[in-house]
Amino acid sequence: MTQSMRLADFAADLQWDDIPEKVRQEARRSLVNFLATAIGGSDEKAIRMVVAALPAYCGPATTTVIGRRERTDLLWGAYLNAASANIFDFDDTHIPTILHPSAPVAPVVLALAEAHPDGITLSGRDLLTAFVLGVEIECRIANAVSPEHYQRGWHITATCGVFGAAAAAGKLLGLDGPQHRHTLANASVQTGGLVEALGTMSKSLGVGNAARNGLWSALLAARGFEGPERPLEGTRGFLAVATGAPDLAQLTDGLGERWELLANTYKPYPCGVVLNPVIDACLDLHRAGGFAPDAIAEIIISGHPLLRERTNRPGVTTGRQAQVSAQHAAPVALVTGSAGLDAFSDASVADPQLIALGRKVFFHDDSTFAVEAASVELVLADGRRLGVHIKQARGSLGNPMTDRDLEEKLAALCAYRGAGFDPAALADAVWTLDQAETPARLLDALRAGS
Amino acid sequence: MTQSMRLADFAADLQWDDIPEKVRQEARRSLVNFLATAIGGSDEKAIRMVVAALPAYCGPATTTVIGRRERTDLLWGAYLNAASANIFDFDDTHIPTILHPSAPVAPVVLALAEAHPDGITLSGRDLLTAFVLGVEIECRIANAVSPEHYQRGWHITATCGVFGAAAAAGKLLGLDGPQHRHTLANASVQTGGLVEALGTMSKSLGVGNAARNGLWSALLAARGFEGPERPLEGTRGFLAVATGAPDLAQLTDGLGERWELLANTYKPYPCGVVLNPVIDACLDLHRAGGFAPDAIAEIIISGHPLLRERTNRPGVTTGRQAQVSAQHAAPVALVTGSAGLDAFSDASVADPQLIALGRKVFFHDDSTFAVEAASVELVLADGRRLGVHIKQARGSLGNPMTDRDLEEKLAALCAYRGAGFDPAALADAVWTLDQAETPARLLDALRAGS
Repeated sequence: MTQSMRLADFAADLQWDDIPEKVRQEARRSLVNFLATAIGGSDEKAIRMVVAALPAYCGPATTTVIGRRERTDLLWGAYLNAASANIFDFDDTHIPTILHPSAPVAPVVLALAEAHPDGITLSGRDLLTAFVLGVEIECRIANAVSPEHYQRGWHITATCGVFGAAAAAGKLLGLDGPQHRHTLANASVQTGGLVEALGTMSKSLGVGNAARNGLWSALLAARGFEGPERPLEGTRGFLAVATGAPDLAQLTDGLGERWELLANTYKPYPCGVVLNPVIDACLDLHRAGGFAPDAIAEIIISGHPLLRERTNRPGVTTGRQAQVSAQHAAPVALVTGSAGLDAFSDASVADPQLIALGRKVFFHDDSTFAVEAASVELVLADGRRLGVHIKQARGSLGNPMTDRDLEEKLAALCAYRGAGFDPAALADAVWTLDQAETPARLLDALRAGS
Repeated sequence: MTQSMRLADFAADLQWDDIPEKVRQEARRSLVNFLATAIGGSDEKAIRMVVAALPAYCGPATTTVIGRRERTDLLWGAYLNAASANIFDFDDTHIPTILHPSAPVAPVVLALAEAHPDGITLSGRDLLTAFVLGVEIECRIANAVSPEHYQRGWHITATCGVFGAAAAAGKLLGLDGPQHRHTLANASVQTGGLVEALGTMSKSLGVGNAARNGLWSALLAARGFEGPERPLEGTRGFLAVATGAPDLAQLTDGLGERWELLANTYKPYPCGVVLNPVIDACLDLHRAGGFAPDAIAEIIISGHPLLRERTNRPGVTTGRQAQVSAQHAAPVALVTGSAGLDAFSDASVADPQLIALGRKVFFHDDSTFAVEAASVELVLADGRRLGVHIKQARGSLGNPMTDRDLEEKLAALCAYRGAGFDPAALADAVWTLDQAETPARLLDALRAGS
């Protein structure tokens, strides 16, 4: 049996009872975090531009666009909600692939819960099962092409996310094994997204497409639309084009025993994940006090070389770029003591005091550091040195966000968006989703603020 | 100035008067061929399945779906017409990249001619200029990533075609240089398509996406949607992910002096282009006669190793697969003396006589052969040997289809489709397009049979 077929059969066969409780809980945690970032991102300029263009290209309105009054068809709804969830890079992160698992998958699950093409009412367990499946499929494919795929420049959330969206959709459409294989095949020709686009609006097109195209792949497979037999492992299949050294065993080893959701993490700050320990350190320094910002002569950041490679971005001019710029992230946390979305706005980036401090940032590479660790040392004008070392950044696998942290993040992002959400009701609808016979409570809570 | 910016400025600046007459004529020839294959493919199962799914996902109907009564929004129209044009691989072929240039670009030009979002009426010269531009951009990008990109498994028509669709759309939307650069950037995150999917329905999704996503890229750029500055040549831009050895000079060397349309070719048969000389030889053998099909003991095909690599497909079971199978193409041409679409139907593939003959096909690799050359030798049961050598296949750059050949191909494909087209009126509308103040005649001739 081919590996594509084994994954497809797994997708067709997976049942709620097969999923361990800690995986179920991680699914719920992922969904709370997803809702937070989708709501938070839902009024960004890129989202507004797409929404403004849609009347000419959108079918009958069936689907809630999270955080907005407009409703769209199923495909555009999945597209917009995925783009919103990922727009700040504040969504979840799968270790070690750096794929954001929920953004492509959760919108497809929610869209089909709200408007199933066959008129079926799905249960909360149906939704959670499909979500777990989608994350499992996309992350296993991402494992098989990592690390070269991302290093080469493919935006792995988009390129592998499409498979997760496809599998989740196929599950909720009730596809059998061969149809699931065709779903993966249809998805395999619709992968795209470049790391070069991070920090720009274009990034969101790749992520939106991942959700939309994955859903479309399954909708077509349900109608009998067929693709190649070995879309993943074929000689000219996805793995072969995605990396020079695919690790095929990652697709199926321990399938149904090892769960990729258990390697999912959630961000306390809307930044590239490698910045987390730097921000932790700067917030600690701010709280400890004992220095005036004007008295800082140097900000020395020590960490794994990846930290410098991904975040050495002086002179950024937009909030988007600032999310991957140590030259903004460290000063803003040091000076304001906060690192929420407001700290990464265009206005914040234009603050002359922060710009001046950004020029004082220096990197010190130390490959003995883990990526979730960093040290920040301030050299003051009077010669004093203040330093903090962070061993495991907040939000890392070893120091995860608590359920309460995630609820607070959801509340903060509802407040940031300023729409009429009840974050407690939203969170509760997710925490109790497996007991819900229909998705009505969750959907009602979503519509209330949209 | 970056190469992306140079291409973008070229796109913004190109005028009808800049285009040499022989390039203009090749554009018209390409469009006649495009219409032929789009009409011919417009009632295939994959197209029908997409059309059947669309009511739930399609905006207000503005756009003619070539060869069909249904009308769609701009994006789906571009998608379907691109998919139809390429579905049989009977469309044009750029040498040496093997990209099919017209399928992603022409549908975008026609869609904007029929329903421009700003309500503008375009002239025939506007359409031709945008078409020439789109082909130029996609083929130059394809040149820059060839040959490794296709060899690795990327379906170059889809992956590079999106840039051609984007540039053509941007031109007709009147974008300036920076907007054209953002259009290319938006397209760069929306590239996908696998060689693994050739011969299956999935292939059409990549090609449809190329047209749709390219058009969407430009529509968004017109609204201010922005992408990275160096989407092509950036460290993690398209060229770097598409191939390990990009040839950046291909992007801009001789821009506006050397024209890629002059390397475009048109197929006499609905097959992989490497099969053309084999079919020529088999048709010659059929015409010469002197053998009974049952008396054939061996069919020995000599050609460049690529011929075997791409077409050694015994035991195919569908018309689609047969288009890239020497084991079907050679017997059907030998026995029936024809190699049109009917010769590559599912029914034809199931013919026991042809299946039996297919088992007698043997390849002989000879790397001294050019890809447009091949020999076919029949070994008969009585020991006789009949052979034909083709030096330059019909439809190759050295032995091109004539304008009359293209008109006959258009007429044959209109007849194959069985819709109410007037092929002479269609061809005439294209041949005289540069004199047309509006695209009305062309659009009317298209709608008449749709």
